[in-house]
This record gives sequence, C-alpha cells and structure tokens, in this order.
Amino acid sequence: MTPSIYDLTIPVLTRGLTNLSAILDKASAHAAAKKFDPAVLGQARLFPDMFPLTRQVQITCDTAKGAAARLAGVEIPKHEDDEVSLDDLKHRIGKTLDFVKSIKADQMKGAEGRAIELKFPNRTLTFTGLSYLADFVLPNFYFHASITYALLRANGVEIGKMDYLGPM
Amino acid sequence: MTPSIYDLTIPVLTRGLTNLSAILDKASAHAAAKKFDPAVLGQARLFPDMFPLTRQVQITCDTAKGAAARLAGVEIPKHEDDEVSLDDLKHRIGKTLDFVKSIKADQMKGAEGRAIELKFPNRTLTFTGLSYLADFVLPNFYFHASITYALLRANGVEIGKMDYLGPM
Repeated sequence: MTPSIYDLTIPVLTRGLTNLSAILDKASAHAAAKKFDPAVLGQARLFPDMFPLTRQVQITCDTAKGAAARLAGVEIPKHEDDEVSLDDLKHRIGKTLDFVKSIKADQMKGAEGRAIELKFPNRTLTFTGLSYLADFVLPNFYFHASITYALLRANGVEIGKMDYLGPM
Repeated sequence: MTPSIYDLTIPVLTRGLTNLSAILDKASAHAAAKKFDPAVLGQARLFPDMFPLTRQVQITCDTAKGAAARLAGVEIPKHEDDEVSLDDLKHRIGKTLDFVKSIKADQMKGAEGRAIELKFPNRTLTFTGLSYLADFVLPNFYFHASITYALLRANGVEIGKMDYLGPM
C-alpha cells in the first residue's frame, strides 16, 4: 500500500512534538539541578539576530498545526504567542498535539493535490499539498526542532540524538 | 495520485543537498571577505562533545545515500570521511547528489513495505521502508543540515532560512 499524506503528516508531527516536549522536560530538570531559572533557557539564542528558544518552539508548533489544518482543509486554531516559562512551552506543544491528533485520515484524502497558499508580508507561496509537505512543512518543522535542541545542547543540557529522534 | 516513496525521497534529498552546498558557498565567501581560513569553519562546534561542522555535513550526506540505496535495494556507495576544506565538503555533497539522482522511480516501487535493518554497534533497528523514511531518514537528514546551518550562523555567516529551504 502506497503511503498517504496522512501517514507522512499526522504520525510524523505527533512524534516530533512528543519528542520536543520530552526534551524540554530534560531542560527543566537541568535548570533545577544547576539551580537556575529555566526561563533563562527560553531566551537563549545562537546569534543575536536569530530567534530565541521560545520562538523556535512556537514556530515548530505553528508549522505543525498549519500543516494539519491546511492539509485537512479545516481552520487553523489560533494560539497566542505569550509563553514565558518552559512549562508554558510544554503547554503550547500539548495544545498543538491535541489539535494535530484530532485530524483523521479521511480528512486528508486527496490532500496531495490540494492547492495551498501561504501569504507572507511580501510574497505569496503556492503549493500542492505534496510540495507543501515535502518542501515546506517537514524541512521547517525539523529545522526549528533541531535549533531548539541545539540551543539546549549549547547550554549544557545533557540530551542526545535519541531524545530528538524518539524511541525506535 | 497518492505520493510515492520516490517522490518523498529523491527530490527531497536532492533539494536539501543542493541547498546545503549553496550554504557552504556562502560560508566560503564569508571566510574570504573576513580573510580567515574557511577550514576553520569545518572545525566549528556548538558544544565540546558535539560533532564539528565537517562531521555534520558527512552525516547529512550519509543519511541521504543510505536512504536512496536502501529504499532502492542497491549497494550503498562508500565515501571516505577524509574531507578537510569546505571545498572538499562540497565535493562530498556533489558525489552524494550524483548517486541520489541516479536512482529511478522504478527502483523504489513498493519500497514502503521493504524491510530495512540498520546495524549499530550496540543495537539493530528494524523498519519498514515507510517508517525508515519518516522516522529515521528525514528527521536525521534535516537535523544535520540544520545543525550545519546553525554552526555557520553562530559563526557570523550571513545566511537566512530561505538558503536552507531553497527557492520556492
């Protein structure tokens, strides 16, 4: 049986978000062990004009909920970007997971051919469902999850690649 | 038409490797403008026990050639890990691209159900073609490409997300 867009979207995003949440648990435990405020990690950056960790997690979540909604043809839920603590970010991931998991395979039938339009301030990108998933969603989702991992790793949190990949 | 494993593997890896090569061009140009040896960037790390940039690029390439070969059921080409300069790394990416692009859609017919076994020193992972692609190849490929990007960005190379995503 050839894979469906659903197979390559919902279980994949669910897995990635679950792993990201577990990584934030290790970050909180690290801060507790070292006796510093875990919210400091939320402000960590790799370079002054790169987004801090909090924004990296928010974009990871937005990429996931946007993908699930657009490919299923339903409205994208609105989540305010008001997280401060790592617990807030875990809550944001939890809300995103709830939404992503609510999408059923039936809702994504034929999504590979669906026309998807992304409007940015200075350009509009148009995709098929397949190119949106392959060229935009997955590279972006993994990028922001990887940068979050990199930020924690660069700040001494003891995580490894298996935390990012999840149980095999 | 539902997407095939080929659609989600060969064009995706080709695109990612091409973008990575273009990012290394910008790194070389940056080193030339700042008058430092570009090979210094190959040794950049985000943390002492993380792999340096050179190894990140090698693993990105190995993930791509391993995926193309295993899903097509052909032998994985051997590439020595002997790169020193950024030009060497671009050459490595070029060899990987040549191999990835040599795989034809026909060779991946039914690859989603193919049994894939990865032997590591202390464990063996078993996958179907689909789970290998979704749970191992794509997260790993984008992880190492993203960490390469992060290393260059943290070292002042002026690249942006569109360099990583490529032309849309």
